[in-house]
Amino acid sequence: MTTFYYSPGSCSLASLIALEEAGLDYKPRRVDFSKGEQRSPEYLKINPKGRVPALVTERGTITETPAILAYIAQITRRVRLAPLEDSFAFAGMQAFNAYLASTVHVNHAHGRRGSRWTDDASAIEAMKAKVPQTMADSFVLIEDQLQVGPWVMGSEYSVADGYLFTLAGWLPGDGVEMDRFPKVKAHFERMQARAAVQRALAVEKA
Amino acid sequence: MTTFYYSPGSCSLASLIALEEAGLDYKPRRVDFSKGEQRSPEYLKINPKGRVPALVTERGTITETPAILAYIAQITRRVRLAPLEDSFAFAGMQAFNAYLASTVHVNHAHGRRGSRWTDDASAIEAMKAKVPQTMADSFVLIEDQLQVGPWVMGSEYSVADGYLFTLAGWLPGDGVEMDRFPKVKAHFERMQARAAVQRALAVEKA
Repeated sequence: MTTFYYSPGSCSLASLIALEEAGLDYKPRRVDFSKGEQRSPEYLKINPKGRVPALVTERGTITETPAILAYIAQITRRVRLAPLEDSFAFAGMQAFNAYLASTVHVNHAHGRRGSRWTDDASAIEAMKAKVPQTMADSFVLIEDQLQVGPWVMGSEYSVADGYLFTLAGWLPGDGVEMDRFPKVKAHFERMQARAAVQRALAVEKA
Repeated sequence: MTTFYYSPGSCSLASLIALEEAGLDYKPRRVDFSKGEQRSPEYLKINPKGRVPALVTERGTITETPAILAYIAQITRRVRLAPLEDSFAFAGMQAFNAYLASTVHVNHAHGRRGSRWTDDASAIEAMKAKVPQTMADSFVLIEDQLQVGPWVMGSEYSVADGYLFTLAGWLPGDGVEMDRFPKVKAHFERMQARAAVQRALAVEKA
């Protein structure tokens, strides 16, 4: 049995959507950040990084959103959640996911988890102040250059779409109007209409 | 013809090593950060993010180290630079690369490029002060939990090894003694002995 560790509102939503799109049998397990469960000895045995997501399979645990997304696509090839037969197109999807993970998510984290990078309270406040700008800059690039449309990779839906949907959903909380990015907003609404996305959001709310 | 855009001392070394290990025919093109070439209109046409690495193929450009590394392994399967036949093992390698990209590289960047996340000069200094701690914390995890040995993935060398070598090489400049991490240090020395690594370092120095 596969178990998926998630926290509502976090980037784990991207993998939840992929699991639902793939139709995989899995048990969702909420990690309660408000109780610090991600730092509990029990959870650190599952993921020593103390983060979500973590996908526990019969063979072991997979962490990191881009790795989990590609894995789900690879083990459910017939559902076509990534351009697996074309190394160049697959690299394009991976590059998109890597940008979300190492730039966009990191920008967002400076508004909430600045203590990762400094212990100075005023520096943490200074970081928060720039989040609307860094998030907007990233989404200008996504809007104008990175997203093909109607889906991230063009005509074919992929696991990158659930990842973009997840991080675009952070924009209002980061002080950025989604209306500034018409293609991103249309993509967001297209995602909301998908049954698998609705199921993933229902798992988060359960 | 494939062209690879790199900058000495940056994470692009990981992809340079992979290109050399794979034996691919490519033209290295240095991007001179001291002249701000990464922000020139010419380079922004190649990579609108204004970063390295960028691998320009006949079909288009691939950016982001984890995406380039997996791509090089996929197009040169006979060299065996990734466990491509095993989705779980491939996910493990991808998770390792994602951790380096979105956590370790980001920790390092707070010492040199803090202006990405704040415009406050004292906050930038405060970020610099924590880099030795965040880099050491990441390498404790790599030393104790993530690296299998003798190579990152165990008995088989992969593109993840060149990536670990690249970021481990940043430790002294980040105020962290590599001696604290005997497995990482032994891995670093094992890497230095590889002909492909020596060729990649020679490209950087050319």
